[in-house]
Order: sequence, then C-alpha cells, then structure tokens
Amino acid sequence: MSIAIISPGRDVSSWVKTFEKVDSGIDVQVFPNIIDKKSVEVVILWQHPKGILKEFPNLKLICSMGAGVDHILSDSEIPFSMPITRIVDPGLTIPMTNYVVMATLNFQRQLFRYQTNQKLKIWDMSNPELETRVGVMGVGALGSDVIEKLKLLRFPVFGYGNSPKSGTDYPYYHGDELPLFLKEVNLIICMLPLTPRTENILDMGFFRKCNKGTYIINVARGNHLVEEDLLAAIDEGIISGAFLDVFRKEPLPKEHPFWNSDKITVTPHIASVTNPDSAIPQIIENYKRIKNHEPLLNKINPILGY
Amino acid sequence: MSIAIISPGRDVSSWVKTFEKVDSGIDVQVFPNIIDKKSVEVVILWQHPKGILKEFPNLKLICSMGAGVDHILSDSEIPFSMPITRIVDPGLTIPMTNYVVMATLNFQRQLFRYQTNQKLKIWDMSNPELETRVGVMGVGALGSDVIEKLKLLRFPVFGYGNSPKSGTDYPYYHGDELPLFLKEVNLIICMLPLTPRTENILDMGFFRKCNKGTYIINVARGNHLVEEDLLAAIDEGIISGAFLDVFRKEPLPKEHPFWNSDKITVTPHIASVTNPDSAIPQIIENYKRIKNHEPLLNKINPILGY
Repeated sequence: MSIAIISPGRDVSSWVKTFEKVDSGIDVQVFPNIIDKKSVEVVILWQHPKGILKEFPNLKLICSMGAGVDHILSDSEIPFSMPITRIVDPGLTIPMTNYVVMATLNFQRQLFRYQTNQKLKIWDMSNPELETRVGVMGVGALGSDVIEKLKLLRFPVFGYGNSPKSGTDYPYYHGDELPLFLKEVNLIICMLPLTPRTENILDMGFFRKCNKGTYIINVARGNHLVEEDLLAAIDEGIISGAFLDVFRKEPLPKEHPFWNSDKITVTPHIASVTNPDSAIPQIIENYKRIKNHEPLLNKINPILGY
Repeated sequence: MSIAIISPGRDVSSWVKTFEKVDSGIDVQVFPNIIDKKSVEVVILWQHPKGILKEFPNLKLICSMGAGVDHILSDSEIPFSMPITRIVDPGLTIPMTNYVVMATLNFQRQLFRYQTNQKLKIWDMSNPELETRVGVMGVGALGSDVIEKLKLLRFPVFGYGNSPKSGTDYPYYHGDELPLFLKEVNLIICMLPLTPRTENILDMGFFRKCNKGTYIINVARGNHLVEEDLLAAIDEGIISGAFLDVFRKEPLPKEHPFWNSDKITVTPHIASVTNPDSAIPQIIENYKRIKNHEPLLNKINPILGY
C-alpha cells in the first residue's frame, strides 16, 4: 500500500520530508514519478490532471491538500462512491483568520485613507473609525473561527450559509434570506465552499442588494466573484473596495485591471497555505482508518460539495 | 459646585452635550469661558495652559480627558496632594486594541510587501508569513487587553513593565531585564505611560539591543521615541520599520522625514480617541465620590506617573 501526491507544478518536497519524519514506514510516491500505480490506495490531490485517477486500480481514498475540494469534484471521471476528505486544522485556520482579521481591521481603521493622507502630508484626525458590521458567508470550520475572533474584537458579526443552522451565538441567515443578511452588514467576507450553487454568487445582482459602500473580502475561490461586476459596482459607488486573495485565473494575469485599482488590494493566494506539519498527521490518520475500515475524518459530501 | 473642561483648541461640544444627557443637574463650564471660577471643584484637562489651576481656589479633583496624565504632571504648579484621575474604559481599550492588532497583523502578513508587489504586478507566493514574536511594553489596562487579544490570535507575546508583576499568563520582564525581553521579540509595541523614566526610552541604545529586523509600533506618546534615532536604526537595517500614531510634535510638521519614509506608517493620533459616552459616567462617578469623601476610581500615583 502506498500514497501518491499529485500536485503538478508545485514543490512538494516538504510534504515528502514530513511523511518520512512522521511515519517513515509509509511509501510515498510523487507525480509524475509514480512507478507502482497498483500499490496506490490513497492519493493527495491539488489541481490534478483530470481523468488521471483511472490509472490507479486499487484507489480507496482521495485527500485534498487543502480545505477546498472543488478542484477534485470538477473531475467528472471520479466515481461517486469514492470517499474524499479535506484538511480541517489549525494550520489552515490560524493564518486564514489572521488574514481576514487584518483585512477587516484595515477597513475599520481606514488604513488606506491614512496611507493616502501620508503621501499628501495631511494630518486629519476626523472620523477615525468606520462603523463596521461584518457578514461572514460560509460558517464552516474556517468561517466559525473568523466569527469567534471578530466577536472578541467587538465587531457585530452576522453569518450566512447554505443550510439552516441553530444555536449560533450570532444572527444567522441561510438560503433565500441573503437579501436580509446583506441589509445588516457593510463588510462581507466570502468563505463559502465553491459549488455550482455558490459559483458567481458575488455578481452585480448581489452587489445591488448590498448597503452602499459595502466592502468585499474574498478568501474562498476566484470563481465566487464575477470580476467585471465588482469593477462596475466599485465604479458605481455601490461597493467601496475589495481585499482579494483569490482570482478566476491565478497567477493574476499582468493585464488584469485589479492590479491597477486603488480600491482593490491584491494578495497572491497566501491567506492560508496548507502546512504539511499540520495536514499530514490528519492524512495518515485517515490512511489508517481506511486500512481498518473505520469512519473517516473530514469526509466531504459530494452532493453538497463540502 | 461645577466642572470645568480645559482643553484649548479642541471642540468639546460633544462632551458638554453628553454631560447634559447623562446628568443635566451638573454645571459644566468650558475654557476660556469660565465665569464662576470659585464654584469649580473638578477640572477635566487636556493640554491645559500651565499654571492656570491656581485660578481655581476650591479645586478638589483633576481628571485627565484620556488614559495618559503626563500632560498634567508636567505642570509643576499643581499641588502634590491634589488627586488626579485618568480614564480607564472600554471606550479607549477597544479602538486601541484594534489599532494595535491591525498594525501587528500587517507586519505578520506583510501587507506592505504585497502592496509594493501589486504596484509592480508581481505574484510572489513565497514566505507568506513573518514569524512574529510580540513584545508589549506597558501592561496596564490597555496593554493587558492587547496581550489577551494577540494571544487569542496565537501570537507568542512577552510583556515588559517598570514594576515586578506575578501571575501573568505570559512571560513578563521588568526594569533592568529589558535586554532579555528584547532578545525574545521582533515586534515591539510601546504602550508605556510617559514618565521621566520612560521618556526617550526608544533610542539608539535600545534599538541596538533589538533583534535585527525588529519592527516598532508606538501608540503611547511621541516623547517615548527619539525620532532621529529611529530613522538611523532603519537606515542601518537594525529596525525594519515602524507604525506610529504619536509624535514629539503634533500635528507632525510638513517637513518631518517620517512623512516620506516608505518604512514608516504615519497615522494622526487616532489609535484611541476618548469617547465622551464612555468617559463621562466615570468622571461623574468620581465627582460624586469627591462630594461624599469616598475613594476615587482610577486615581493615579503622581510619583509613578500612572
């Protein structure tokens, strides 16, 4: 039995080293140098070549290298019954939360205004805080941690998700209640899983339901956002700006208008990068559970897409 | 009995309105239009003209409009026995903490690097986080809240203060242990009270004891920092940059080199602005306690200076 890592174009040497360190008894093969495909029972995927899994006749488990599985589910050749797991761990949560809290505080305390004033040598003490009512879309493991930390920093926080949810210690909206949710907030953090239902959710129809001056933070997937609609909504003054870590095409092409927008902050998909030290023990645990026919950790529902 | 507000050059109309709202029975006079000086038993001060308190023969209590009292203690004509109180309240703590957390996260997640890369259209995913070990100098009401919140965001945090302190849930250093404290950290947040002992504490001797690349956040007082030494330490590469809200001269003069430094972020003393809604009930409580000869809230020790 062996594990294969299939993540073309990415240096996975730290993953291989971490496997050796944590459990040197596990055979790890790395694409494209997979010699013994028959022995592979577990694959770890990130942006794999579609259809490649047909080559592994004894595959029992697919692990995503990150929190999202949209890159796996978009491969129509994967059998519906194949278990798929994702990474849920503090190694992803802490940096994601810190990134989102940074972007939120920069909005509230108007960092960009003060940076502009500094260039112009303007000392303007007026209105030092923007009233900031935060809407978190997607309240899974990552979104819940963001909500908890923003509440501790005394932000009013509202949640939105696909499914009903009770017992939250914040106001929660779901499904068709999106317009009600949007009326409550002026800063939106997109942390939704990417599914057919959430793709292109941040479009002009959405922006028109927002309070004037609403700010957008997207740390989920580029395909949640209709990028030309964001630019139009900023031009119209509906949306005041955006802090974006993910894009429809990555790396963001040189000719993309986001690079030059003074209302948009671009970061290169670094909000949360899977740390193999945190992720691998979780994958090894599932590898053992597959061997022992035990229930898997962080198994996703392929219908829901998360 | 009446209260006088002495804060030249500042619009205190919101303070007067809040007094009326909270307790319309209190007579509030505002400098320079103080008609009945004999009736004044409580003064609320911010940058008052030195020596002016001699004109109030029945003065019983001096209240600072903010958390600091250095502006009061620097008036040598105030009798040593006169009680002085300061503002300690969430109205100051929340914005101060949020400002400091913002500056800390911008350092950890390298916002300024990504802003530069955006201008140059560079997509660089390498090293998305700086290891950030935070040193908080001054662990009073404001500093303690910053420490608590930064610990919740999983930063290693170290405290430093003037006096010994036990039972903290973070490593604490005091007095002569400053070099030991500085060896532990690479981001320093100055939240010290301004006293003869702490004035000019952030000077070249201090910077030379720091780890290479240490970053400075100052939200205390401009006089803690020897400004030309900071510029020299940045030039020498000892200090990597600074996020400053307070300056020796405010407003920061147009010709000051901080405005043009790409390593220094300047904000116009807005980290925490006293909110009269939070401060005034506290002042009224002390006003009643003075009348009833009860112990005062948040009374400062004039020898310690805080």
